[in-house]
Amino acid sequence: MRYAVLGTGIVGRTVADRLVSLGHDVVIGTRDPGATLARAEYAEWQEAHPQVALAPFADAARHGDVLVNATGGQVSVAALTEADAAHLDGKVLIDIANPLDFSRGFPPTLDPVDDDSLGELLQRTFPGLRVVKTLNTMNCRVMVDPARVPGEHTVFLSGEDADAKKSVRELLYSFGWPEASVLDLGGIESARGTEMLLPIWLRLMGTLGHADFNFHIQGATAAAGD
Amino acid sequence: MRYAVLGTGIVGRTVADRLVSLGHDVVIGTRDPGATLARAEYAEWQEAHPQVALAPFADAARHGDVLVNATGGQVSVAALTEADAAHLDGKVLIDIANPLDFSRGFPPTLDPVDDDSLGELLQRTFPGLRVVKTLNTMNCRVMVDPARVPGEHTVFLSGEDADAKKSVRELLYSFGWPEASVLDLGGIESARGTEMLLPIWLRLMGTLGHADFNFHIQGATAAAGD
Repeated sequence: MRYAVLGTGIVGRTVADRLVSLGHDVVIGTRDPGATLARAEYAEWQEAHPQVALAPFADAARHGDVLVNATGGQVSVAALTEADAAHLDGKVLIDIANPLDFSRGFPPTLDPVDDDSLGELLQRTFPGLRVVKTLNTMNCRVMVDPARVPGEHTVFLSGEDADAKKSVRELLYSFGWPEASVLDLGGIESARGTEMLLPIWLRLMGTLGHADFNFHIQGATAAAGD
Repeated sequence: MRYAVLGTGIVGRTVADRLVSLGHDVVIGTRDPGATLARAEYAEWQEAHPQVALAPFADAARHGDVLVNATGGQVSVAALTEADAAHLDGKVLIDIANPLDFSRGFPPTLDPVDDDSLGELLQRTFPGLRVVKTLNTMNCRVMVDPARVPGEHTVFLSGEDADAKKSVRELLYSFGWPEASVLDLGGIESARGTEMLLPIWLRLMGTLGHADFNFHIQGATAAAGD
């Protein structure tokens, strides 16, 4: 499958690496490839991953059958606007970003929050996309290798398009997520709930001193008769 | 121990019932006892719990060595204002409420949210209280009987006063919480994180069709050396 991973930070690189290891054809999208390659950290990663091309957002989006939003939540709309609506139409966008706002320091707040979410904002702004919010509630190494955290734990799905969610489920299974760990919360509105896990996630990371943890919904069995 | 449970809804009654069953001396506080007893649901519960007195907020607060805030989050400041600062000074307030705002319908939003929390608001408004935020991330029947949800799951603690948190820990153990399930997030500021679990909690209840579930932090072991 051809993927476009939008965003060149640790999250985008970690997902791109995993997709390549599963045999997918991956292009990473960025605003300015020259500027990205001038970052030592990216250049080093690029050298270790010669099979991953780096391209402007529009070229990456044209390449991808499926898009992954791994940009910072405050710049996701701008990135997808650069990607060009013609390259988005009908495609699945796996939105793993969070609308973290660091403008007031650490810990960040969220914007939007509570009566809106980044997932909804993207679906509303780019109606041709089929947005599936998932994986945004954990560290990126856990996203692509759930066995890093021992025991059962949960990955949530939110989105309007059943076929899109089905295809994202298959990708999650290929990352190592057991079927029982995937919890479909319903429509994209439910992304409000998963994005609002970030504040406690950040405080847990501080308290525990590491990021190899995840939320598990204990007792998450549907009521009898469902 | 003498407890004042502020709030006459299902949460307050469930906690009061459990405290009585553990041998504590409990008074429930309300704005207007006559109006509360005129509610058939409360009158019925009162009849089954003759050992629990119902009193105005101030009388209940005077009675309690420890206070439990089980009022609606939008009226908690008003309730504690009626309770009278003289009856609050130096006491532990176990804040199990959430600032749910139903003014725009269901699902509710939160107010305050993100850059403030009900726990902080109460600590700031009533500096004589030692506020401990806990138990607000689950259904009230799970609060007082964690075994309703099979397996390990988590109850969070937030607060500024170490002695107050220690005494609340003891109460949680007496409710049936294993020591390993109590996760101290730090100061009262961390209540932002636990209160912001409510949006996903409400959506999970809708998806699962029941309330016998809880969050578990899988992998919540402190880093080596801590």
